[in-house]
Amino acid sequence: MGLQLLNEQIVLFRKDNGSVVALEDRCVHRQAPLSRGEVVGDFLQCAYHGLCFDGSGNCVRVPSQNLIPPNARVRHYPATERHGLIFIWMGLTEEPDTEPLYEFPWDEEDDWHETHIHLHTRFSYLLLIDNLLDLSHLAYLHRSTIGIDAVADEATQKTERAGERIRVSRWMENIDQAPTHIELSGYIGKVDRWQQIEFCPPGYFWIQTGSAIAGGGGANAKGKDLLIKRNSVHMVVPETETTTNYFYTTVHKTGTLSEEREQIFKDRMAHTFHEDVELLEHLSRQARPQSPMIDLATDAGALQARRILDDLISAQGNLAPPV
Amino acid sequence: MGLQLLNEQIVLFRKDNGSVVALEDRCVHRQAPLSRGEVVGDFLQCAYHGLCFDGSGNCVRVPSQNLIPPNARVRHYPATERHGLIFIWMGLTEEPDTEPLYEFPWDEEDDWHETHIHLHTRFSYLLLIDNLLDLSHLAYLHRSTIGIDAVADEATQKTERAGERIRVSRWMENIDQAPTHIELSGYIGKVDRWQQIEFCPPGYFWIQTGSAIAGGGGANAKGKDLLIKRNSVHMVVPETETTTNYFYTTVHKTGTLSEEREQIFKDRMAHTFHEDVELLEHLSRQARPQSPMIDLATDAGALQARRILDDLISAQGNLAPPV
Amino acid sequence: MGLQLLNEQIVLFRKDNGSVVALEDRCVHRQAPLSRGEVVGDFLQCAYHGLCFDGSGNCVRVPSQNLIPPNARVRHYPATERHGLIFIWMGLTEEPDTEPLYEFPWDEEDDWHETHIHLHTRFSYLLLIDNLLDLSHLAYLHRSTIGIDAVADEATQKTERAGERIRVSRWMENIDQAPTHIELSGYIGKVDRWQQIEFCPPGYFWIQTGSAIAGGGGANAKGKDLLIKRNSVHMVVPETETTTNYFYTTVHKTGTLSEEREQIFKDRMAHTFHEDVELLEHLSRQARPQSPMIDLATDAGALQARRILDDLISAQGNLAPPV
Repeated sequence: MGLQLLNEQIVLFRKDNGSVVALEDRCVHRQAPLSRGEVVGDFLQCAYHGLCFDGSGNCVRVPSQNLIPPNARVRHYPATERHGLIFIWMGLTEEPDTEPLYEFPWDEEDDWHETHIHLHTRFSYLLLIDNLLDLSHLAYLHRSTIGIDAVADEATQKTERAGERIRVSRWMENIDQAPTHIELSGYIGKVDRWQQIEFCPPGYFWIQTGSAIAGGGGANAKGKDLLIKRNSVHMVVPETETTTNYFYTTVHKTGTLSEEREQIFKDRMAHTFHEDVELLEHLSRQARPQSPMIDLATDAGALQARRILDDLISAQGNLAPPV
Repeated sequence: MGLQLLNEQIVLFRKDNGSVVALEDRCVHRQAPLSRGEVVGDFLQCAYHGLCFDGSGNCVRVPSQNLIPPNARVRHYPATERHGLIFIWMGLTEEPDTEPLYEFPWDEEDDWHETHIHLHTRFSYLLLIDNLLDLSHLAYLHRSTIGIDAVADEATQKTERAGERIRVSRWMENIDQAPTHIELSGYIGKVDRWQQIEFCPPGYFWIQTGSAIAGGGGANAKGKDLLIKRNSVHMVVPETETTTNYFYTTVHKTGTLSEEREQIFKDRMAHTFHEDVELLEHLSRQARPQSPMIDLATDAGALQARRILDDLISAQGNLAPPV
Repeated sequence: MGLQLLNEQIVLFRKDNGSVVALEDRCVHRQAPLSRGEVVGDFLQCAYHGLCFDGSGNCVRVPSQNLIPPNARVRHYPATERHGLIFIWMGLTEEPDTEPLYEFPWDEEDDWHETHIHLHTRFSYLLLIDNLLDLSHLAYLHRSTIGIDAVADEATQKTERAGERIRVSRWMENIDQAPTHIELSGYIGKVDRWQQIEFCPPGYFWIQTGSAIAGGGGANAKGKDLLIKRNSVHMVVPETETTTNYFYTTVHKTGTLSEEREQIFKDRMAHTFHEDVELLEHLSRQARPQSPMIDLATDAGALQARRILDDLISAQGNLAPPV
């Protein structure tokens, strides 16, 4: 399987024991992509002239000769698999950061129902980080689904930083529900609504959202007072400077949404993401600005995130996103 | 409504009183195109985070906060509407040239029948100005419609300049008719034919053409001696260095052309413009020349036009085309 | 007929006496491609304003005026026609290399059946030269048609150089047949197989291949012992740095292949070329390498060919490929 991360071509394959290997996807001989080749035992065989590489990137066979040139080696990336994710260390330092930072933060023993969306997009990952850390945009860009005016003009927003992590908490009291939430909950009265976004660099977001009948206890509401409670993980994986893979996983407790309403929810989320992607691709395409940009109070989270990323990039010369 | 002029993105909207506003099409916050937003009263509201701008480009509302940053402003272009055209001043000087230079030069009270063609093209507006000021090309490029050899090799051409305007007059005596003109007039004998092109910078052309039975009085011919008399305005509106909007309006007196012949005329003109566009797009696409170019006597009008445009560009640092 | 060679636009036309003229495909006036024009007697007439050029590139007529500007001339390329090929001298030196280097090396009097394939490809001609001079790639890239492992790991390869020509000879003894060869010969036993590639710069290959029943005399086998004997000419004609025209002609003696088998052969070759083109286009598209490349023993021919081409390019400042 070939993929592109941070402008580099990478090939992934599994050895006989199931462990994952990540190598540069370019044969050391005539640069054919190794991802077009075949896995032969623990080795990956090039599709052009048949050179074989082992799990550390060393060439172990050249079909047309017995001598293997000593420098016949492709780049090897340390890779770890956890929570169903593969983490690839692309830093220039030899020593990988062995602590995977990402996880699915819901209790795995519980009975959660997962929904996945994957989007390949033509914009810089930075635009998506801005987007997710300033949810006031729901009021305008997503007013046909999950936004209403009050998400921008009646929200109290708090931004906290702990080490390299950022938490943006938003609280909206006694407001109307957005169209999709009326559809899903069947409730048309006033609600208290909350959004909590935790950003973990380089590109992981844990977003907890919900709404309860106004005055019903907010995120602590129980029973019929609690209308919606949702956990989502958004992963932003840069492919090149101008293209990004966007992975979204969300859960709700099994049985809390009928099959029909779950389908409505998926349709509405797909529509919502499409609105984001369409706008961000347009921003990415347009010519450089003539006018300077201004920042608003709601940008606090995004600005801190960009600063953290800049520091990480300077420190490591590279990023290590998950796949 | 968003459009691109001279490499700049511009959004047009109408205020409640109907007057036209032209602003930079890029929000000062995160650069979303304002043309995707909504007109709310006299204001334009951004589709991303809901910032509102007034008719002079000042931000007058930020939904998520009360304070409006003092530099929250997008560029404003003076705009005037006249003769159904909108004139946008894009010069670097504050003071617009308030005198719209363009008009439809036929008597509006008379009973004229208008025909419009709009083409979006991928070539520099300069190539189209060259094309329209040297109509000798009809003899070769448009020989299946409005050209015959004599338009190149039997024409007397005169080029006059008055201020920033140029007039090229062409007179062809006792020549055959071109195929389309035979179709339209039903006449197959010899004619006298004339073409008069008036160029008004930056990109306006008034073209008067006609033919009369040979010796019948030329442009002053009356009754059956006058075969064809046509007024056209061509407007050349640069979008970028390599793309151009081309607007064409032509008139004939109501009743002088049957519906069937009018359709023939439109078909033939569309075919003719297609030949121009196809060739000029090819010229625009091809690699830079290896050989130097030469100019001919028929290029006198085009060369003067380019000189006038160069002077205007140096003087103002910009052009002000109509929309 | 217009074509592009070595980044230059060239127009070819025939004079009344049938001789071929090659000129720069760009009118000296407004740069219209002359290949859109018409041949009028021994002259080529531009499609835009009707200028006419003779066989040496001089303008001989300007319809709209009597005076022909003295510098109205387009570049002329010496051209020769031989063996059905047109050779165009694009060197900077005035004196062309008049000795056409290419030919179809089969006896023209004999009863050969020719098959032609032409491919327009998006890769550098150098990648195709590498490909054709190292046929060990058949073992991996073309294993569904003309390759098996033994073509890489059981071949004896010899590389010879004579002047500017290179000959790579490959001999495989007592090996299995490749799938397509089983289909064509109906023979499933062991064979001796040979491949001889003669490269003549800048881009001509004469390839002789065959197989005989193992121990049956190799290329000298007669009668039923000789299973396959094939002559092919491959011509690699650079269009730009990144696009190449690839011409292939192959022959077999009339009557040695049934119509049905000949169709199978054409289908299999088309499939094989498609595999090459698809891989080489991918190589050409991919970003520049991060890792250095290594060369193998089988690359001897390709490395010598590149050295010869570099020398020729330095000496002449240009290449003279056939069309």
